[in-house]
Amino acid sequence: HLKSFRGIEAAPEQIVVGAGSEYLYGLIVQLLGRDKTFALEDPGYGKIAGIYRLHGANCEFMDLYGTKQDPKADILHISPSHHFPTGRIMPASKRYELLSWAQKKKSRFIIEDDYDAEFRFSGRPVPSLYGMDGGGHVIYLNTFTKTISPTLRISYMILPPALCKRFYEELSFLSSTVPSLNQYILAEFLRGGWFEKHLNRARTYYRRIRDGLIKALRSGFGANVFDVLEESSGLHFLLRIKTDKTDEELQNSFLSQGININPLSSYYSRPVPETKHIFIVKYSGLPEEKIPETAARMLRAVSI
Amino acid sequence: HLKSFRGIEAAPEQIVVGAGSEYLYGLIVQLLGRDKTFALEDPGYGKIAGIYRLHGANCEFMDLYGTKQDPKADILHISPSHHFPTGRIMPASKRYELLSWAQKKKSRFIIEDDYDAEFRFSGRPVPSLYGMDGGGHVIYLNTFTKTISPTLRISYMILPPALCKRFYEELSFLSSTVPSLNQYILAEFLRGGWFEKHLNRARTYYRRIRDGLIKALRSGFGANVFDVLEESSGLHFLLRIKTDKTDEELQNSFLSQGININPLSSYYSRPVPETKHIFIVKYSGLPEEKIPETAARMLRAVSI
Repeated sequence: HLKSFRGIEAAPEQIVVGAGSEYLYGLIVQLLGRDKTFALEDPGYGKIAGIYRLHGANCEFMDLYGTKQDPKADILHISPSHHFPTGRIMPASKRYELLSWAQKKKSRFIIEDDYDAEFRFSGRPVPSLYGMDGGGHVIYLNTFTKTISPTLRISYMILPPALCKRFYEELSFLSSTVPSLNQYILAEFLRGGWFEKHLNRARTYYRRIRDGLIKALRSGFGANVFDVLEESSGLHFLLRIKTDKTDEELQNSFLSQGININPLSSYYSRPVPETKHIFIVKYSGLPEEKIPETAARMLRAVSI
Repeated sequence: HLKSFRGIEAAPEQIVVGAGSEYLYGLIVQLLGRDKTFALEDPGYGKIAGIYRLHGANCEFMDLYGTKQDPKADILHISPSHHFPTGRIMPASKRYELLSWAQKKKSRFIIEDDYDAEFRFSGRPVPSLYGMDGGGHVIYLNTFTKTISPTLRISYMILPPALCKRFYEELSFLSSTVPSLNQYILAEFLRGGWFEKHLNRARTYYRRIRDGLIKALRSGFGANVFDVLEESSGLHFLLRIKTDKTDEELQNSFLSQGININPLSSYYSRPVPETKHIFIVKYSGLPEEKIPETAARMLRAVSI
C-alpha cells in the first residue's frame, strides 16, 4: 500500500504501530530526546504541541512560508501533502529546501504527518517527503483514523534506518499498544485489497457529500456571500463568509443553529487579520440526507 | 467486579483505561510530574523503572522491609497483595505505616500495582490498599494481561478524586488508546458474569498445572534438592535449588535443556547473597501434557 500509494519503500521493521498518533508522538520525543525543540506549523493542529509539551519537549510555531525560513529547531513537524487546516500543498522547491536543511545536521529530523492524505479529490497524487528524502532524515507518520475509523486506534510511523536502529536498542523493551487481533484483522484487510477498495468507495462518497454541501450553500446565497477555498484539502473545506460580524459572533451564530465549526483564526498561535471570516467546515460525519437542512442552518446563521 | 473482588468503590469517571500498564505508567508521570522521584521495590520488576525513566522521572530502589523505612521519594510504586517476584503479602501494620506516610504530604502518592492479584490460590483474600485508604493517596492499577490475554492490551487505573479532577483538567485532551469495540466487548464480558466464571476456571486450571509441576519436581529428587517457596505468589513459584553452582551456571544449564528461567537475584538492584540458588518458575504457559517432560529437563539441568 505504501509503495503504490506514497512511493515509500520500507522494511517491515521500520514500521512501528501504536495506539493512535498521539502515542507515536510520545515515542518520537522519547526517541529524539525531550531536550529537543519541535517546530510546528502556524496555523496548525494545536493538539500536537500539547502532546509534545506533555512529554517535556519544547515547541515553537513557525510560518513555513513567512520570514522565518531557517528554523532554529531540531525537529520539524509538518504535513507537506495537505496542510491542516489550509489544505495547502507544499511546492517541490520548499520540500527540497527543508530536506536540505535537515541534512545539514545529524540531529535534525522532519516528521511528515500524512494525516488525511488519502482524501485528495483533485490533481495528481503528491509525492511523500519520505519518498523524496535520500538522507534518512524523515519520519513518516499516518493513521487509519480517517480511512477506517477513529475507534480503531491504529497509527504507524516509518523510521529512517538510523532511528530504527536506535528504536530497537532503546525502546524495544516497550510492549506494543495495539492488540494483536486488531493488527491481524487490519493486515488481512490490507493484504486482500479491501482497504484500497474501501478507500475508493470512501473517496466517492465523501466527494458527493462535499459537492452536495457546497452546491446547497452556493444556491442559497450565491458567491457574493460564500466563497469556498481549498476544496481538495481533505475531509474539510474552507468557507470564506462576507459579513460584518466578528469570528466569535459568527461562531456563536453557527452554534445557535446547531452547527459546531471553528474559525481558521483559531488555528493560529497569533492574530492574523487576513484569516478573518474563514471557517473550517468538516463534512465527513454529515449524512447525505441532512445536507439541505445543514446548509439552511448555516445560511440562517450568517443572516441572523 | 472491583467492589466484590477488591473492596473498591469508585465512580466510573475515576477509572482510566489504557493500552497496557506501561502506557498508564506514562500517564501517571504526566499527571504527577517528571520532577518527582518514584521509589520502586527492590527486588522488583525492572521494566517499571525503565518506563518511568523513559518519561523523565527519577527512580530509586528501596527495600520496603529493610532499614530504609522512610522513603525520601514522593511516589511509591508497590504491589502489596502479591509482591513480584517474592510473592510476599504486605502485613497490615506495614500498610498502615505507608498510608500514614503518604497522608503526611499532599504530593505523596502510592501506586498500588495489583498485577496478578487474581491468582492467589490459598489464604483469605488480601484487601486492596486503595480500599483501606481514606485519604485519597492511592492510585490503583491493574491489567487484563494475565486474566484474559496479554494481546488484549487493556489495563486500567483508579484515580483518587483529587487526581481525577487534575486528570480531566490537564489530560482529557488525550485520545483513548483502547479501541471502543474492544472496550464494549470487555464491558459485556464483565457485565454478563463471564469474567468471573473465566477467572474461576483459570484458577482451577493454573492450580492443577502448578501442583502437577511441583509434584513432578519433588518426586524426581525430593526435598533435599528442591525447595518450593511462596506457592501462592501468583502465576509463578520460587524454587530453591541445593547446588554448588553459581546462579549464572544454573541458568545456563536450564537454558541448555530448553528451560528459560531467571534467578531471583536478577530482580535485585544490588547483590543479595541470601537469594542465591532461587529461581522464578513461571508456569502459566506450560501445557499440562508437557509437565513430566519439563520436570525431567529441569532435573537434568540441576544434575549436569
